[in-house]
Amino acid sequence: MSAADRDPELLTDLDGGVCATPGIRAAGITAGLKPSGAPDLALVAAEQPVAAAAVQTTNQVQAMPVRVTARNVADGQAQAVLLNAGNANVCTGAAGLTLAEQSTQVTAQALGCDPADVLVCSTGVIGVPLPPEPLLSAIPKAAKALSTDGGAAAARAIMTTDTFPKQAAVAIAGGGVVGGMAKGSGMIAPAMATMLCVLTTDAQVDPSVLQRLLSEATARTFNRITVDECGSTNDAVIVLATGTTHIDERHLERAIEAVCAELAEALVRDGEGAEHVVHVTVTGAPSEEDALGVARAIATSALVKTAIAGGDPNWGRVLAAMGAGPVRFDPDRVDVAFGAVTVCHDGTVAPFDPAKAGAELQNPDIHLTVDLKLGPAEATVLTCDLTHGYITINAEYTS
Amino acid sequence: MSAADRDPELLTDLDGGVCATPGIRAAGITAGLKPSGAPDLALVAAEQPVAAAAVQTTNQVQAMPVRVTARNVADGQAQAVLLNAGNANVCTGAAGLTLAEQSTQVTAQALGCDPADVLVCSTGVIGVPLPPEPLLSAIPKAAKALSTDGGAAAARAIMTTDTFPKQAAVAIAGGGVVGGMAKGSGMIAPAMATMLCVLTTDAQVDPSVLQRLLSEATARTFNRITVDECGSTNDAVIVLATGTTHIDERHLERAIEAVCAELAEALVRDGEGAEHVVHVTVTGAPSEEDALGVARAIATSALVKTAIAGGDPNWGRVLAAMGAGPVRFDPDRVDVAFGAVTVCHDGTVAPFDPAKAGAELQNPDIHLTVDLKLGPAEATVLTCDLTHGYITINAEYTS
Repeated sequence: MSAADRDPELLTDLDGGVCATPGIRAAGITAGLKPSGAPDLALVAAEQPVAAAAVQTTNQVQAMPVRVTARNVADGQAQAVLLNAGNANVCTGAAGLTLAEQSTQVTAQALGCDPADVLVCSTGVIGVPLPPEPLLSAIPKAAKALSTDGGAAAARAIMTTDTFPKQAAVAIAGGGVVGGMAKGSGMIAPAMATMLCVLTTDAQVDPSVLQRLLSEATARTFNRITVDECGSTNDAVIVLATGTTHIDERHLERAIEAVCAELAEALVRDGEGAEHVVHVTVTGAPSEEDALGVARAIATSALVKTAIAGGDPNWGRVLAAMGAGPVRFDPDRVDVAFGAVTVCHDGTVAPFDPAKAGAELQNPDIHLTVDLKLGPAEATVLTCDLTHGYITINAEYTS
Repeated sequence: MSAADRDPELLTDLDGGVCATPGIRAAGITAGLKPSGAPDLALVAAEQPVAAAAVQTTNQVQAMPVRVTARNVADGQAQAVLLNAGNANVCTGAAGLTLAEQSTQVTAQALGCDPADVLVCSTGVIGVPLPPEPLLSAIPKAAKALSTDGGAAAARAIMTTDTFPKQAAVAIAGGGVVGGMAKGSGMIAPAMATMLCVLTTDAQVDPSVLQRLLSEATARTFNRITVDECGSTNDAVIVLATGTTHIDERHLERAIEAVCAELAEALVRDGEGAEHVVHVTVTGAPSEEDALGVARAIATSALVKTAIAGGDPNWGRVLAAMGAGPVRFDPDRVDVAFGAVTVCHDGTVAPFDPAKAGAELQNPDIHLTVDLKLGPAEATVLTCDLTHGYITINAEYTS
């Protein structure tokens, strides 16, 4: 579902990704960090220092660019974001930290700005030293390649095991734009992981408000998806706000959340080995937190995810996964449905047509709904099926 | 490693599984619950009511036999354990509960004991009604088949996706025996799952002491293994103590733990799709609890488990998994070794020979050791690699 489809009265889809925002230029080039020779260096830049905010990994093992970005965004201001794929620059010691610093300096020189206004992100293999070259010499080339239609190239350059680039953008009724790009297809966990996302907007907004809007949108989108529950060392969601347009704060909030939601769904759809996106919705919960807890327990179950890979409407595994989770419920009241087909009623098997239930599991998007019948709250977590493709990618790819 | 190998000064390995204990008879027969026609009904019986204890699933969705066993073992006494494979009798409503009750009555009648002294366990598919027949009519046949060398047949009859039966038994220096059998190969989680285990001993022991010894042994063995982190609805570890031999309590404790440890290791070795057993040992922790927490974070990581399936000494995934876990440590002090090969020193890559590290990953048993360098405590969690076999079994098998 596109960003605008989520909030059609307010939003209209735009092309351009991060470059949908006026004054934002982007580039994606090949620095030579990926053995494949695919594009691996992206740059997103405003015309001057603008309001900025970031949400980054909570992993105790933090990549060098995560540390530099945390420091540089602390004043709520930035002009550019430099992102490389092919090496995560983590567990790389003092040399890795120095390189992350140098990359901000070289970027600043190329753009004519302060190094403290450059944010950096890396993604790729962990624990392999990242040599200064060819990265540093490629940065001026990326700066030269900046253009107002460079969003697609930038989105492509940050891909790792992704099979397609991920962009989204909307125009807000009454004026204003939010655009974005993201990468990620594995290690997507409740506390977002192995994903990078850059958002841009022309909103005039205080950095502290921008930070709050970004944190809330992240909690409601990127933190409600899972591929394999593995937490990463590098993930970052960054927003630059150029400040040229007044946007109602609630409208900006909805637009940021819609763009993040479209990108989050794209991450799951491109989950490593994923053949289906599974929308796990828990209704009838006493609180949204409870609904979310039950949905997470189901969405992260390897047995639920393999059952779906096998086209099996195995509601027993759904109940077993819920029961092993931390949220209390009454097993004798639970209903489970795949799409329109209720397969479990009041905690025991419902009379259902196996062919119809099986057909629901053939859809690219599968809707697994659990009703606890205990209250008014609900929540949805997106997950994907667990297939041979996941094993092939992760047993054969070193990252 | 056998049970006696773990404590060679005290223990000697015995044959016979649950029947190693004098006075215990067992049987395994085909009731007709498995579509394959393989044996699916086991009975283990003492000559009279004896001391008994059980540790069962903490899942909120509890199988009918789990409820009946919890009630019947509450007085610390039992004479027999009836176990069926092929159907888990869970989410089966009032009819399922009635059948679990009836099965204790039919067993009691066949053995000439009180139904309240019969414990029951089921394993197999969830949420499929379990009809009274052929189960009930098979129980007298199982009782007739009881023999003092029936341990192997019983161990075989409780298998589901297991590829081999699991038995262990030891003689204790100075007198006394502990024997056991177990099943399980998937859904093995920190709070033991989709496993059944029956232990027997001739120890003269108070039921409350027996319960404590069983709970502690379970915590240190079955709760320190993982296959896929999926919690089950049926798991049970049950012990019968016939009371004919005085055994020093500390010796009994060591013998029970050794037998449980051998069975737990066998569960992981037979983990669904497993090609390697991975011994994840964390040393240098401030406390055993911290060591255990870090070991669990590593042992449950899908990315670590797929890297091992791929023969890749990917210590970066180890650090990322640790860092995403709840236990605090200093990333810049961590060492990681595969077998004798240190691949990470002080949080960055160590100079190592990739061929030697790769060779360590070819062993059936892989020793992954992480030194936190923060204290004196250590702990080990057993896990297995995550392979195509796991996907094949769980995407194609309905349970």
